[in-house]
Amino acid sequence: MKHGGNIYEFSKVCGCKDSEVIDFSSNINPRTPAHSFKDVNISPYAEPTYEELNKKLALVYKLESSQIALYNGASSAIFSLFEMIKPKTTFLYAPLYGEYKRAASLYSKEVLLSNRFEDIYELPPKKSLVVFVNPSTPDGIYYDLDKLFSIWRAQKCKVIIDESFLPFSSKKSVRKFVRKNKNIYIVQSLSKIYGCAGIRIGALFSDERNIEALKKRQVSWGLSSLDVSFMLNALSGLKHIKKSRNWMINRKTELENILIESKLFSKIYSSDANFILAKLSSLDASTLQQKLVAHKILIRDCSNFDFLDSSYVRFALKDKSSHKKLKKAFNALT
Amino acid sequence: MKHGGNIYEFSKVCGCKDSEVIDFSSNINPRTPAHSFKDVNISPYAEPTYEELNKKLALVYKLESSQIALYNGASSAIFSLFEMIKPKTTFLYAPLYGEYKRAASLYSKEVLLSNRFEDIYELPPKKSLVVFVNPSTPDGIYYDLDKLFSIWRAQKCKVIIDESFLPFSSKKSVRKFVRKNKNIYIVQSLSKIYGCAGIRIGALFSDERNIEALKKRQVSWGLSSLDVSFMLNALSGLKHIKKSRNWMINRKTELENILIESKLFSKIYSSDANFILAKLSSLDASTLQQKLVAHKILIRDCSNFDFLDSSYVRFALKDKSSHKKLKKAFNALT
Repeated sequence: MKHGGNIYEFSKVCGCKDSEVIDFSSNINPRTPAHSFKDVNISPYAEPTYEELNKKLALVYKLESSQIALYNGASSAIFSLFEMIKPKTTFLYAPLYGEYKRAASLYSKEVLLSNRFEDIYELPPKKSLVVFVNPSTPDGIYYDLDKLFSIWRAQKCKVIIDESFLPFSSKKSVRKFVRKNKNIYIVQSLSKIYGCAGIRIGALFSDERNIEALKKRQVSWGLSSLDVSFMLNALSGLKHIKKSRNWMINRKTELENILIESKLFSKIYSSDANFILAKLSSLDASTLQQKLVAHKILIRDCSNFDFLDSSYVRFALKDKSSHKKLKKAFNALT
Repeated sequence: MKHGGNIYEFSKVCGCKDSEVIDFSSNINPRTPAHSFKDVNISPYAEPTYEELNKKLALVYKLESSQIALYNGASSAIFSLFEMIKPKTTFLYAPLYGEYKRAASLYSKEVLLSNRFEDIYELPPKKSLVVFVNPSTPDGIYYDLDKLFSIWRAQKCKVIIDESFLPFSSKKSVRKFVRKNKNIYIVQSLSKIYGCAGIRIGALFSDERNIEALKKRQVSWGLSSLDVSFMLNALSGLKHIKKSRNWMINRKTELENILIESKLFSKIYSSDANFILAKLSSLDASTLQQKLVAHKILIRDCSNFDFLDSSYVRFALKDKSSHKKLKKAFNALT
């Protein structure tokens, strides 16, 4: 299972229904805003500029509408960005979300991986495209990017910052730089914080000239009217992010304690996001994944992340009852 | 209004609600299968290969699953196809759906337009990519492609056939050639026949090696879980297409008669699709569009189609009551 969240493959292994899988592998907020779709008219073409959604995002993310391009998911935004920039060299701060490497391999002549755990200040080549996910995956570490930005500026790099997990923390965004620096692109998934991986809407934030250029390459009507309706409602719920963060505080401590008490791990990463990376002390990831099948618990084997190995696993924060089940499963192992 | 269906812009001109616009401009089946979304779980990632939808499409369109690639709408399929093929020369049988010219302009060195009303057998350059929409837009003419296929074969062309409007007629498809000829790509919109422009799912049919190559360039999770749920249900309603065709027979005669009786037109095209192209005898398209504002009726001004001019307008087939309103509006003009 290359990516988290494939409950469909896992349920076959378990011999259970998809809905019975307790999925710790996908880093999606379990708190999804409620929404009714019964008043959505799917018959007509949507308003082609998605103006209302654009304005709402501008309000929530404190940007101008002209600094936002909408895509059917953050992955689609990433691919479109690479397809337009076609960077000669891409410099990826790894480990990171797998779709960056796929997109870079398709559209870059050269793809370099920099191990951010070893040397965060490794110099990217001049004029390369650098990609930094902040907070990072799969560890959830938030980095202060000030010094890195001065390096990137000196190297005349184009910069992609992926802030898909930033809404889970109260750390600062680089969105304010979009006004001053036309070499910055910010990728913003909405499905993580709004708990809706089935809704395909993601955004790119950048200087308005960049956004104009991106829009010229966009297909007409890329978004589902149902998804747009959901997201308009979700973005209107101003307390969702705050409530999710409050909810997370207790859940994170709870999950950390379960991981510590299990004595399975030699290292538990301190995360600013809604998931926790842990290094197994003796078991390997696929063995642990196997052992949890009986409990219908799916965890993320992180061995396919660059610079990680089969001793790394990731757990998304879930509700209290799921945490209890994980604890019980761990107890049954030892 | 460059494309049909922008009821949002038009409602502002009319000073009415979007839902009050009687939209003859967008060629969408007014018969949309009913569906409830209340059991769709939008929280988890969808099954990443969309296997169930793929199989259902294979069944309905009589293909193998391996011959189908799914996109968030036919436009997205078109852009992805051009982005992969990057044809040196694209030869478009015009007039045709506008997104082909946009995609060709982005990804082809040379874009040639062939006027199919003048000479359908104009020779495309060797090894060019040819695009033929069948039935065609905005006229709805169905072409027997046998002779064209032998020309294309002789010229070693890659061929895109857009059959988005074919389900409205009982004419034959070229899908059976997909098995034998790896130079054919078929674009299949689903939103036209299923009356759901707000649902973003379209398909490409081709040889399985082509489909494999296309899938390598696809983003992960491109489709909305809500849209997938709608489309699975729609494709299961085996009588929808037949019922829609039966419904169309009377509606087409009705609309043709209204156009004839209006005496506004010097030519009314005989269509195999769910829309009718007509040539105005004295008024121009934008004047007629203006005159219909008072009736909240939106029609398609076809002046931005290649080889057509401001004397062409298109009407989609609508329900009886909308037809009556059009008739009344025409009567008020004269």
